[in-house]
Amino acid sequence: MRIGVAGVTGRLGRLCVEEIAARGLVFGGGLSRRPDGARGMTDDAAVLAAQCDVVIDVSHADTVIHHAGIFADTGCGWVLGTTGLDDDAEMAVVAASRRIAVLQAANFAPGVNMLLDLARRLGATLPGGDYDAEILEMHHRQKVDAPSGTALAIGAAVAEGRGVLLADVKRTNPTGIRADGDIGFASLRGGQVVGEHSLIFTSGTEQITLSHRVFDRRVFAQGAVRGARWLAGREAGLYGMRDALEA
Amino acid sequence: MRIGVAGVTGRLGRLCVEEIAARGLVFGGGLSRRPDGARGMTDDAAVLAAQCDVVIDVSHADTVIHHAGIFADTGCGWVLGTTGLDDDAEMAVVAASRRIAVLQAANFAPGVNMLLDLARRLGATLPGGDYDAEILEMHHRQKVDAPSGTALAIGAAVAEGRGVLLADVKRTNPTGIRADGDIGFASLRGGQVVGEHSLIFTSGTEQITLSHRVFDRRVFAQGAVRGARWLAGREAGLYGMRDALEA
Amino acid sequence: MRIGVAGVTGRLGRLCVEEIAARGLVFGGGLSRRPDGARGMTDDAAVLAAQCDVVIDVSHADTVIHHAGIFADTGCGWVLGTTGLDDDAEMAVVAASRRIAVLQAANFAPGVNMLLDLARRLGATLPGGDYDAEILEMHHRQKVDAPSGTALAIGAAVAEGRGVLLADVKRTNPTGIRADGDIGFASLRGGQVVGEHSLIFTSGTEQITLSHRVFDRRVFAQGAVRGARWLAGREAGLYGMRDALEA
Amino acid sequence: MRIGVAGVTGRLGRLCVEEIAARGLVFGGGLSRRPDGARGMTDDAAVLAAQCDVVIDVSHADTVIHHAGIFADTGCGWVLGTTGLDDDAEMAVVAASRRIAVLQAANFAPGVNMLLDLARRLGATLPGGDYDAEILEMHHRQKVDAPSGTALAIGAAVAEGRGVLLADVKRTNPTGIRADGDIGFASLRGGQVVGEHSLIFTSGTEQITLSHRVFDRRVFAQGAVRGARWLAGREAGLYGMRDALEA
Repeated sequence: MRIGVAGVTGRLGRLCVEEIAARGLVFGGGLSRRPDGARGMTDDAAVLAAQCDVVIDVSHADTVIHHAGIFADTGCGWVLGTTGLDDDAEMAVVAASRRIAVLQAANFAPGVNMLLDLARRLGATLPGGDYDAEILEMHHRQKVDAPSGTALAIGAAVAEGRGVLLADVKRTNPTGIRADGDIGFASLRGGQVVGEHSLIFTSGTEQITLSHRVFDRRVFAQGAVRGARWLAGREAGLYGMRDALEA
Repeated sequence: MRIGVAGVTGRLGRLCVEEIAARGLVFGGGLSRRPDGARGMTDDAAVLAAQCDVVIDVSHADTVIHHAGIFADTGCGWVLGTTGLDDDAEMAVVAASRRIAVLQAANFAPGVNMLLDLARRLGATLPGGDYDAEILEMHHRQKVDAPSGTALAIGAAVAEGRGVLLADVKRTNPTGIRADGDIGFASLRGGQVVGEHSLIFTSGTEQITLSHRVFDRRVFAQGAVRGARWLAGREAGLYGMRDALEA
Repeated sequence: MRIGVAGVTGRLGRLCVEEIAARGLVFGGGLSRRPDGARGMTDDAAVLAAQCDVVIDVSHADTVIHHAGIFADTGCGWVLGTTGLDDDAEMAVVAASRRIAVLQAANFAPGVNMLLDLARRLGATLPGGDYDAEILEMHHRQKVDAPSGTALAIGAAVAEGRGVLLADVKRTNPTGIRADGDIGFASLRGGQVVGEHSLIFTSGTEQITLSHRVFDRRVFAQGAVRGARWLAGREAGLYGMRDALEA
Repeated sequence: MRIGVAGVTGRLGRLCVEEIAARGLVFGGGLSRRPDGARGMTDDAAVLAAQCDVVIDVSHADTVIHHAGIFADTGCGWVLGTTGLDDDAEMAVVAASRRIAVLQAANFAPGVNMLLDLARRLGATLPGGDYDAEILEMHHRQKVDAPSGTALAIGAAVAEGRGVLLADVKRTNPTGIRADGDIGFASLRGGQVVGEHSLIFTSGTEQITLSHRVFDRRVFAQGAVRGARWLAGREAGLYGMRDALEA
């Protein structure tokens, strides 16, 4: 199995190449808009696809439609971690997934994907009238948006488990009345924290907390490569990290 | 639906009666070796069973065989929280469950039962070669045994998820080499802490933690009554709290 | 030593009476606007003061000026936990403290007072350019204001240690640029949590956290009684809980 | 001010050189048994001392007596982080400190040194009969000793605050009766955790926790350089990191 990396000169792309080597796997080549002459690097997605069984794609949202067509034509698996896709790009992903195996994930960390899965289960089991759900996240001091995208994804998973829309129960301002079923968000900023998330369910008598901490950004590369290994040779379809983790 | 309580004069039994009232349910009577004359209290299990649809049994291990026969003959549901059963008692429970609905749980707290379920899933997904599992518990200063029974149950759930026996991977001494797949235990004692448990999976790059805290012993009564409501009218079988929570 | 309680029919007042008894101390009587006929209860502050060495005052802000005069005239010690004092009331407290020993505290919990002291020391030692300070608090779902008064007091203590005013560095909105030296606040709400506070200093390489949890409201009565025992017989002056704790 | 580094080819020594450069300070040279030819490196302590105002010494315990004589003769400041000194070496340090400024620390992390200071204060304020003290530490899976040296130092600080010896109140086995005043220890092992410590005081009504986490080993170099800057030009004496941090 040969694993390629699109967006190979970015921070996460480089970590993916290192992880492929660390696991003793075969690096099938890299795709970059500005290839730096390293062995196996190209700026042509078709060239990359031809020499790989699976491509980990951590490039840019504006390449998705182009890649969708090429990878589907070539038949190579597509592990897609690019975020910020517009509707056309999302439709291109769905279309490609009818012809090739596609694994799409907003965050490759295995633990985050476990957390999303468990959040949905807890939401389904712990009713909002009895258990107040709050989500706390901490990131480095430079992060200017809040709550984090992953915190919102956790909230959406709890809401899904409860059969409601996050938009209808989201509480980002801690003042004022807390309605039954509200899902609250709080954010801390400091140092160079890569990412920490906690989901806290509190009733009058007990508390269940689910937390995740990233020690090292390599965890995203580890998850991407785990996903690529799982995807190789799989039949066409649109998969998520949860599928890869459950295997 | 009338809910009875066996072991009604014990601490948990009394809390169950209060919870039944707080939820606006019908208390079907109490069983005690030393009935104190309160309305609806008896020392005869057959009398209790005849006037209840479900009995929450938080009496003693040595009554289990007796109760098994009477409840099965009467056809009332049996929510059994008594622990320390010997093999004969366990067999009596299984035999009764062929004739009536039995919900057996070592700990009625909904959150603890969720934790056990999630622990098994995490064990199955996070391999021992990559993710070190450690279990931390804290209880009041008077507790002389360690690790707690619930901590061991969490460890057994992780081991089950990994397809091994806890006895083969249990690590209670923090010194010396930590083998791949070991499940470690640590205990803190202090104050009047009712019970706190954390299950921590740590890889070189991320950490996932699942925690539970009891604020108030009433949580055990809440879980027992939730179980009783779920069990009433159900067909014969041996159920666990997980079944009741998933409903 | 006889300890009286002003505001004896309130929740905290009652707990103080229980704590006095639990410690084997002498209860000198209670003051209430609506005395309920219990032994030693009066609606006249002068009567109470005459029969006590120290009075724990957990009544209302609008009684402070009245109590200040009477207690100072009588010479009994004054442990004052009432909050929300206006400037006139604060001046009356200062005036009284020239004649009698006064211990004034916004929160009697020993641990909270330790936390305030340590927060100031940490603020003085961990410069804002290197260590980002954030304060997290959690309270029950009914609390509608945020951050809590204690969280703000912790922030003020850090600011004092750094030689700045909290008003100049307070950050309650987690979005946007975090300036060097900012002190951030975040709040969680859920269940019946009595009160939890964490002060977190994060640099690029380490993190120091100081946390406090209340398990039981009795802690406030314990601190008030500890303060009263310390204050009895002390010379005139305005003291804080820190003085009582250091003894 | 020129800062030298003894033990410059070790992991911590290299980080100290990087930190000196990162802070825009002047690197005065390095000492190593096996100098690698880099500019300013020597295997002669006298040569190094002659060209430095302060030397950060992170070499080996068996060099301490030798360095003590040379640094005292030369008059350069000595920031000593070597551990495992025998009695003769400790006496040599004391003797040198009568002639030069010596800053000795087992752990240079500012936060750990703050923690030790605060632990002593908390021990003095929170009596063992009311507040159970427990110390929890987590380190990477390869660590075979437990509790960590820093955990023991925290315990000793609490004991000192309480006016007792740690040896008389140390509790490393969580089973059996917990005596009043005992200081308990628990250890977790997993992943590549550099070092986390928590000191937890629990009464029946409240809990105070003091925690420290190392994100990056560079924190030790940061503390050593902070100590060196503070020590330069100071009068003879034996100092600790606390002195440097309070300045």
